[in-house]
Amino acid sequence: MAVGVTFPRGFVAAGVTAGIKASGRPDVAIVAASQSVPAAAVFTRSATAAPPVIVSRAHIAEGTIRAIVISSGNANAATGTPGQRDAERMAALVAAGLGCKAEQVLVASTGVIGVPLPMHLVEPGIEQALAALSDAGGADAAVAITTTDAAPKLAERQVDTSLGSIRVGGIAKGAGMIRPDLGTMIAVLTTDAALDPSQTEDALRAAVERTFNCITVDGCTSTSDTVALLASGVCAGVLTSDDVILVNAAIQAVCEDLALQIVRDGEGAHRIAHWTVTGAKDAAEARTIAYAVAEAQLVRCALNGGDPNWGRIVAALGVTGCAVVAERIEITLGGHTLCREGMAVEHVDTAAVNVAAARETVEIGIDLGVGTGTASIWASDLSKLYVELNADYTT
Amino acid sequence: MAVGVTFPRGFVAAGVTAGIKASGRPDVAIVAASQSVPAAAVFTRSATAAPPVIVSRAHIAEGTIRAIVISSGNANAATGTPGQRDAERMAALVAAGLGCKAEQVLVASTGVIGVPLPMHLVEPGIEQALAALSDAGGADAAVAITTTDAAPKLAERQVDTSLGSIRVGGIAKGAGMIRPDLGTMIAVLTTDAALDPSQTEDALRAAVERTFNCITVDGCTSTSDTVALLASGVCAGVLTSDDVILVNAAIQAVCEDLALQIVRDGEGAHRIAHWTVTGAKDAAEARTIAYAVAEAQLVRCALNGGDPNWGRIVAALGVTGCAVVAERIEITLGGHTLCREGMAVEHVDTAAVNVAAARETVEIGIDLGVGTGTASIWASDLSKLYVELNADYTT
Repeated sequence: MAVGVTFPRGFVAAGVTAGIKASGRPDVAIVAASQSVPAAAVFTRSATAAPPVIVSRAHIAEGTIRAIVISSGNANAATGTPGQRDAERMAALVAAGLGCKAEQVLVASTGVIGVPLPMHLVEPGIEQALAALSDAGGADAAVAITTTDAAPKLAERQVDTSLGSIRVGGIAKGAGMIRPDLGTMIAVLTTDAALDPSQTEDALRAAVERTFNCITVDGCTSTSDTVALLASGVCAGVLTSDDVILVNAAIQAVCEDLALQIVRDGEGAHRIAHWTVTGAKDAAEARTIAYAVAEAQLVRCALNGGDPNWGRIVAALGVTGCAVVAERIEITLGGHTLCREGMAVEHVDTAAVNVAAARETVEIGIDLGVGTGTASIWASDLSKLYVELNADYTT
Repeated sequence: MAVGVTFPRGFVAAGVTAGIKASGRPDVAIVAASQSVPAAAVFTRSATAAPPVIVSRAHIAEGTIRAIVISSGNANAATGTPGQRDAERMAALVAAGLGCKAEQVLVASTGVIGVPLPMHLVEPGIEQALAALSDAGGADAAVAITTTDAAPKLAERQVDTSLGSIRVGGIAKGAGMIRPDLGTMIAVLTTDAALDPSQTEDALRAAVERTFNCITVDGCTSTSDTVALLASGVCAGVLTSDDVILVNAAIQAVCEDLALQIVRDGEGAHRIAHWTVTGAKDAAEARTIAYAVAEAQLVRCALNGGDPNWGRIVAALGVTGCAVVAERIEITLGGHTLCREGMAVEHVDTAAVNVAAARETVEIGIDLGVGTGTASIWASDLSKLYVELNADYTT
């Protein structure tokens, strides 16, 4: 079945087992267009970005893209010049198989940091994946890019335009080290719309800014965050400006779907919070405040316990470095106002608040009363399972 | 026995049970000098500082100080104008009992945020504490200021000066919401040295900067951080400049002793790390980097697991916003170099590294190779017990 990245026409994909993961689960994926196509990508802004990110950044600057190859189980990060050679070799192997230039292949790797990539396993894995490419391979590719994810992440949308129906699909991975900064762990998006390179770029940047860049699991930004969008143009013809709006909305919807799947699958996540900050000095401060509060460990523990402990939110608000006036703070949870003018509200319906605090998604609003800046993000809780999962991941 | 704050001559203290804590454990403490004395205090820089902090900040600005009253179990934070009246009332009651002005009494409260202080319990508690004041009360006071602390925290030092032996003592509390910014949770320091007001201020600021301001448990700065130093002057006479150096060192030693007791008693703490950052652009960046890495949740989980996972340190270094060049990063653990030029070192003595990573205090060094900035901080790990303790603290 054509799902995820192969839902749009003009794409094939595969996911195979190369043996990088000790678990024996699939670990090499390729997503390819039937020819070189317009593409855009955004990457981590980390100063310790992994070699695949450095290689892909150079390749996307060259022009059109034919494919992306992704290995999981080893991030090929903190591996220096040898790691860069390995990433380049992965692109070259895929290019040779598809008959394109190495610069038309993007590379991504995810997993343990600081261990050289086992190329004696990766190389035959890539050959195997090239042989398995098909338009039914979207599901396999989604599985092969996962690491600590509890489930593969796929999404599809279809919109009716003046040129007929246009499709958008995507796959993503990510459960820990999630605090995207310009990209997320790894996501590949495809569409059969005939977007030109600048339309592809605009669509991706706008969608990422409102979706992957609005989530956090643990506040830890990865060395490997990569999001790529490939536009096959199989649905030929020039899109009207209304069509572009529809297609962009579909791309954003796929990104939001995948981003929320990542937060819900946050390592050890039990519950997520949807934070809405209003009344901040400006949008930038609203965003800083939203992340500062959502990532505060004591706030995340309270979320885990289904505990409407708004005092910890007030404490976190005090040290954001943003414009905060204690006497103007208002905090709501599930629509119930718990704090007004910086103090407890009297006569709160405690039973109803406790129910709202224990929901699967908890809606929390913070109004600062100092300006017009707003922001909205999703964040997971901090559970004992997260600590357990991460206390000895390498050993 | 004269311990903690009553170890220096010229001080009395008491700790009693007022009933603020549901557990029935002691919850009101008073530390008093035999007359009004030079004092200095530093407080949280939180924009949502608690009313007792606001009141104490005003009182210390007035001049000499006679006593400090501390309640535990309720932080009197996010309580607005009524909370401020309660804090002023606490100071007035102590002043009436001791025969001084209300402005000569400091006030601190620690515990749950956002709940009005039960003054019908606090007022008789203060009367009871006033009646119990004695130079044997240091231990009781140390117990009465604790909340989630596993143990009371006391420290004493004695130095021989040209005026004879001078004593310094202190008590502190804190186990969660510990990421001091200009103060720590709550600490009271005393000395019988005849420090003048500016010497008291200088001694406290220098000591706090190098001790309480160099620790972190969970990166959460409190609304109530307060550190006060009272100098009784019982050991009369003018200190030589050499004497001042000796006394200041003793004050710093007491602060370091208490600060390390706080980190070791970090909620759920299993292991602590002593982080040393060298080669940063400057001292400020070294400090930013040290905190960013020490507080990264994935790094703290690895510390908990005794896992020498330096890849997570590299990932955290990538997003500090400071000058970091991946190829220059060097990381050591217990003296073993694990990463050089941003890559894994070959031929590491894995068995020895695993032993070093599992010690009670793990020594971790980061050299950035870009400048001469250095910093050194202590941080606790992130354990399942921390999450458990904080998942439902109010309910």
